[in-house]
Amino acid sequence: MHETTRLAGLIQERISDTLSNHRRNLEPLGRDTEPLLDEALGFLSGGKRFRAQFATLGYRAVKPLDLAGEVTPEFGAVLDAACALELFHAAALIHDDLIDRSDTRRGRPSTHRLFSAMHQQHGWRGASEHFGLAGAILLGDLLQSWADELMQAACDAVTDRAAARAARAHFNRMRSEVALGQYLDVLEEQQPVFAEHAEQLERSTRVLVYKSAKYSVEAPLLIGSALAGANEAQETALSSFGLPVGVAFQLRDDLLGVFGDEEVTGKPSGDDLAEGKRTVLVTLARENLPTTHRRIFDDLLGTDLDPSQIAILQRSIRESGAVDQVEGMISRNIARSTAAVNGAPLRPDAVASLTQLAERAARRSA
Amino acid sequence: MHETTRLAGLIQERISDTLSNHRRNLEPLGRDTEPLLDEALGFLSGGKRFRAQFATLGYRAVKPLDLAGEVTPEFGAVLDAACALELFHAAALIHDDLIDRSDTRRGRPSTHRLFSAMHQQHGWRGASEHFGLAGAILLGDLLQSWADELMQAACDAVTDRAAARAARAHFNRMRSEVALGQYLDVLEEQQPVFAEHAEQLERSTRVLVYKSAKYSVEAPLLIGSALAGANEAQETALSSFGLPVGVAFQLRDDLLGVFGDEEVTGKPSGDDLAEGKRTVLVTLARENLPTTHRRIFDDLLGTDLDPSQIAILQRSIRESGAVDQVEGMISRNIARSTAAVNGAPLRPDAVASLTQLAERAARRSA
Repeated sequence: MHETTRLAGLIQERISDTLSNHRRNLEPLGRDTEPLLDEALGFLSGGKRFRAQFATLGYRAVKPLDLAGEVTPEFGAVLDAACALELFHAAALIHDDLIDRSDTRRGRPSTHRLFSAMHQQHGWRGASEHFGLAGAILLGDLLQSWADELMQAACDAVTDRAAARAARAHFNRMRSEVALGQYLDVLEEQQPVFAEHAEQLERSTRVLVYKSAKYSVEAPLLIGSALAGANEAQETALSSFGLPVGVAFQLRDDLLGVFGDEEVTGKPSGDDLAEGKRTVLVTLARENLPTTHRRIFDDLLGTDLDPSQIAILQRSIRESGAVDQVEGMISRNIARSTAAVNGAPLRPDAVASLTQLAERAARRSA
Repeated sequence: MHETTRLAGLIQERISDTLSNHRRNLEPLGRDTEPLLDEALGFLSGGKRFRAQFATLGYRAVKPLDLAGEVTPEFGAVLDAACALELFHAAALIHDDLIDRSDTRRGRPSTHRLFSAMHQQHGWRGASEHFGLAGAILLGDLLQSWADELMQAACDAVTDRAAARAARAHFNRMRSEVALGQYLDVLEEQQPVFAEHAEQLERSTRVLVYKSAKYSVEAPLLIGSALAGANEAQETALSSFGLPVGVAFQLRDDLLGVFGDEEVTGKPSGDDLAEGKRTVLVTLARENLPTTHRRIFDDLLGTDLDPSQIAILQRSIRESGAVDQVEGMISRNIARSTAAVNGAPLRPDAVASLTQLAERAARRSA
């Protein structure tokens, strides 16, 4: 746990340094750009840092790295890659919140809301909401570029060129898959009716895999391990571990999106229900409901819900048995992930930390 | 001219190949993602390719490159960098059009309009406009990643590591500056009143420099020349050439944004006036107008204009003498750029092509 705290500190320090450097280099553009740079830092001062932790553990699964020791150039490269993932994630969330019309993130106003509020406070011309959109799009773009620069720095610092190229390839694939996964997620919400159960479950699972499971766990692990020069067997083991952990991570997210405590998650309770997200949880619940209940459920989902309607939907989902099913899936996925690293050609101390982190990702309350 | 045509063909071919490769790699995500991939190709089948041309010429200013010859790995690296700039530009325009609420681009519906229309045609749930926003944000993000991959490929193919790093640094600075420049541009439009003339001119010039002049000409030149291993004197010469060409390029754009022919530009006539863009042209025109005229001018600018109101504003700008002033600035900037490469340590055949391309960028009608 001490190591985790140190890592979190180093990550935050490096993110702050990176943003300060950018601020200095961009001074010629004048002080009007400061709100963007301030929000970059504000946004990146929060978050659970799962991606950074998985990337670091991916490295340590292949090559020793003393998290309590001096920050050598090699350690620095791992930190750069970890920070690249956090910056990329911030960019993705900022664009996501705009797409999902989310008002809050990490207990703060979402970026587009923040820029809208700034517009309103100044009494500027035009639509505040549209200025919020502009700020969020541009800050997301900026952070995406800066993420890429950090990934670049990580790869440049690694002397093994093949390792650098492999890490870069994982990073690239991750970026494409998460953008398309997000598109598929949005597309689901637009469909007038749910597909027939088997097909809907396949569609919801595909979104879960690409938008989250691969992106949140498998890709960070593979990027970190590639930087350490992972061989094929190590990569396969980490992939077989990472994908089920990612699935468990997102299934937990589905549960939190319906039942999560706003105080803890920083997101309004029942957020996914109002957004009409067709998660695996929701898909299973619908299938379990009697036809009349299902009709009421469908009519409410994805509408402007008041607290009592949210409570109705929450009760329907729980009573349908879907929560138990999803909890079972989470447990089975975690078991599968543990089995995948059992006897794998990975460093034992890292394996112990990996299974602990998997548990935390799957059992979290925020 | 024959060389320009061949280059245009090679660029288009490489862009198409890149997009096909991505499509193949992303097949596991299923056919629902096709509209994004189709629009990527549709969008990138148009455009003037100025950035690709300037990048190639930047390279040729430092190192011989036979545009009519075989595509060697070295030539391939230049093409990759040139295509990276075109993909990045497409991403920037797609996000820009969303921010500027533009309905058309290159004579086609803008990306967000295209996705809105798709939503409408299918009779999907929810707001078509918001689905358009999602499609445009995600396609922009995707193209930004793919631009970066191409730049990566270009740098990997160059054996001189210092040259690759320099090219990459120019690319990185360009990305940050254009996002912030775009933010400053949007910020100007929100201000309730114009600033006092000298300050307004400074603000409008700053937007012009960062959002366009450096981005459209100087950065592509520096990226290309860096890949060829440019020394400091060469870089300085290309910078001194590129910035005034970029200024002239954008001043022409300001004129086209007010007086351009829709048939030729692919954008509605007087587009900048309805958007309320505080360009250098508009700032100069206001300063020249008598106070009463200026008040009418300010009241109309940035509102929903009908054709007769657009005609009034166009006439005011022309009669104010601002058009002549801007034409004079364009000519002086082109003269300055020509002087900058006169006797510079650059390859003479490339210099001849550079001054020709500068003329075309400054005198174009679209």
